Amino acid sequence: MNQRHDGEIDLALRARAKQVIPGGMYGHQNAAPLPEGYPQFFARATGCHVWDVDGREYVDLMCSWGPVLLGHHHAGVDAAYQKQAALGVSMNGPAPALVELAETLVDRIAHADWALFQKNGTDATTTCVTIARAGTGRRKILVAQGSYHGAVPWCSPSLVGVTTEDRAHVIQYQYNDIASLNAAVQEAGTDLAAILVTAFRHDIGRDQEMPTIEFAKALRAAATAADAALILDDVRAGFRLHAAGSWEALGVRPDLSAFSKGIANGYPLAAVTGNERFREGAGRIYVTGSFWCEAPPMAAAIATLQETKASNTIAHLVAMGQRLRDGLAKLSDQAGIGVRQTGPVQMPMVLFDDDADNAKGRRFCAATLRAGAYFHPRHNMFLSAAHQPEDIDKALSAAAAGFEALAG
Amino acid sequence: MNQRHDGEIDLALRARAKQVIPGGMYGHQNAAPLPEGYPQFFARATGCHVWDVDGREYVDLMCSWGPVLLGHHHAGVDAAYQKQAALGVSMNGPAPALVELAETLVDRIAHADWALFQKNGTDATTTCVTIARAGTGRRKILVAQGSYHGAVPWCSPSLVGVTTEDRAHVIQYQYNDIASLNAAVQEAGTDLAAILVTAFRHDIGRDQEMPTIEFAKALRAAATAADAALILDDVRAGFRLHAAGSWEALGVRPDLSAFSKGIANGYPLAAVTGNERFREGAGRIYVTGSFWCEAPPMAAAIATLQETKASNTIAHLVAMGQRLRDGLAKLSDQAGIGVRQTGPVQMPMVLFDDDADNAKGRRFCAATLRAGAYFHPRHNMFLSAAHQPEDIDKALSAAAAGFEALAG
Repeated sequence: MNQRHDGEIDLALRARAKQVIPGGMYGHQNAAPLPEGYPQFFARATGCHVWDVDGREYVDLMCSWGPVLLGHHHAGVDAAYQKQAALGVSMNGPAPALVELAETLVDRIAHADWALFQKNGTDATTTCVTIARAGTGRRKILVAQGSYHGAVPWCSPSLVGVTTEDRAHVIQYQYNDIASLNAAVQEAGTDLAAILVTAFRHDIGRDQEMPTIEFAKALRAAATAADAALILDDVRAGFRLHAAGSWEALGVRPDLSAFSKGIANGYPLAAVTGNERFREGAGRIYVTGSFWCEAPPMAAAIATLQETKASNTIAHLVAMGQRLRDGLAKLSDQAGIGVRQTGPVQMPMVLFDDDADNAKGRRFCAATLRAGAYFHPRHNMFLSAAHQPEDIDKALSAAAAGFEALAG
Repeated sequence: MNQRHDGEIDLALRARAKQVIPGGMYGHQNAAPLPEGYPQFFARATGCHVWDVDGREYVDLMCSWGPVLLGHHHAGVDAAYQKQAALGVSMNGPAPALVELAETLVDRIAHADWALFQKNGTDATTTCVTIARAGTGRRKILVAQGSYHGAVPWCSPSLVGVTTEDRAHVIQYQYNDIASLNAAVQEAGTDLAAILVTAFRHDIGRDQEMPTIEFAKALRAAATAADAALILDDVRAGFRLHAAGSWEALGVRPDLSAFSKGIANGYPLAAVTGNERFREGAGRIYVTGSFWCEAPPMAAAIATLQETKASNTIAHLVAMGQRLRDGLAKLSDQAGIGVRQTGPVQMPMVLFDDDADNAKGRRFCAATLRAGAYFHPRHNMFLSAAHQPEDIDKALSAAAAGFEALAG
């Protein structure tokens, strides 16, 4: 077994992948930027536990980068999925589940009068932008610098393969900075179609930041004054912060919201919800995909939303997140190693003081991984309803090994 | 039961949908533009048969607009899907199936040295364009006027919500028209990144047209001369025309291909394949989606590709398509009603002479639907491996009712 790598089987798969996949892997699940020892390929998962292809088990703190909200293989969700799959998967039109899911979202999401369904978060954010332009007849889109809204040319974090024109009508402001927002609104002038904002600031590699109420209200006021759309990108935070939409606790309602990730507990689905102001625009645009009406993920989403309500999932996520945060703070104090834990506890972000190159974070995570917990050194993590106190404690034991590695 | 509509249950669902979905439905599966009697919602499907929510059965000639290649609920594909699903659906990284599928495509698709996976055809075509721009450092994309490449602003068939800049670098040529291609190449000048082309001309509402060998060779020569990418949009035709890529029979190999629809027999997946020339560009762009690495559709795709080879699916599709085409021609002759059947027999297109407003096609289809076969009046249709001679004959019996309705 090659000890420099992640295990023989992962290593062999990476070598094969390098032949047939550019760079060996692509996108956010590319393990190449992760610390040594992180597996690229996974064999199986259940609850909040994942196994890599070499058979090593980890407490899962990434939840598939968000989609797994209730835990892998949630019995109720999987039963709903399979019941629909036994009837039909992709058909010539949608199944009744499409209507039931739209009704469920309209019932749950405070601002929602209607819904549309897609597959990925990028589909949902792009659809929101197109609806905003259709509904206002204007072009300018305001986005916070550094916010992630997807991986197509108008919003990708990379400019490779992107033309200047792809972003001709995108104007940047700074998250939680009302003055910069006002300047951006000014720049858009009479051409403002939408202000796009993530539920909280969750940019990779930096401390998370909740929106201030003043900032949220300023965005709402600016959009309302211009009769433009306030678009909440709730792809990452949706269903983990607030059951009625992530800004409901702030008392600020968007015109359009983009959801995906946790909506169907790991099955592929995205949704746009909107209010009456933008129903007409949403009805005039042409958006679709061959698999957007695939029925089983919609049945899974209905079951997921039922379960989150019945079990008060968010309260559980907060309790588990607080347990993790408190435990990590204690370990940090004991080790005398400064850690910053920011943003909502149920979407943990762990960054180390004096760690501009992320070297501490990487050493911590490498040791933590070896001890059986899958932390991420730079990206926010995710908890699920499957995490129990003993799982959090197991992750904390692994984290203790991480702090030891940093101290040693 | 309200006879003006599609049945009580479909009608009730449409009424509910109208409340919570803009316009009641969206995209290509919106039944509103179809003739009276077409159902919007489907209850179940098996083989080449679909049932609407009111329990009416149809011989399925749309195959979910393409995805269903082997028939609904193909035992081997579903077993492969479920085996992977029992292990893991969405995990922190891909399953080994990602590598196996990439190897399978590289083995099967003649021009392919590598592969990347997405969810929908639009993801694949957009990824191809981004790779071409990354790999050439240029911007201009040539597309045939009227060709469908997806439903996002750079390529959507609708301009609602689309800005001029979204298409700033898109130049049109005419399908099968070398002079117009040359003019477009001239217009792109030294900024040509890619020439994009569908496997054959399958624009909605018009006769299908195979590419001439001269045209295909001219595209290849123009791309090669400019060191630009020839991108084959094989989303719709892929795996139904030629197992090694739809232009292999023409002796013309693209640099990049976009696949989706039939690749996983109804499960959501898309793929880009490319050659060595564009491996580096493909490795530098950032593309991803929360569900792009979902494992079970990849397992389903491997099983689908194995089955298509083992059973020589394409030969079967051609045989069934020819039986349908011959039967329709005979009925047309008997009725003295001129019909044009164009393009590959396995992707049938049926248009009526002297029918500029599609009124004949609609009357034909409405009657055919009532007689138990799901034809489409304006879009190409799709056959599957599940269609047997008796299913085609059942569709022809229904078509006879359609011709009667036109004659009456």
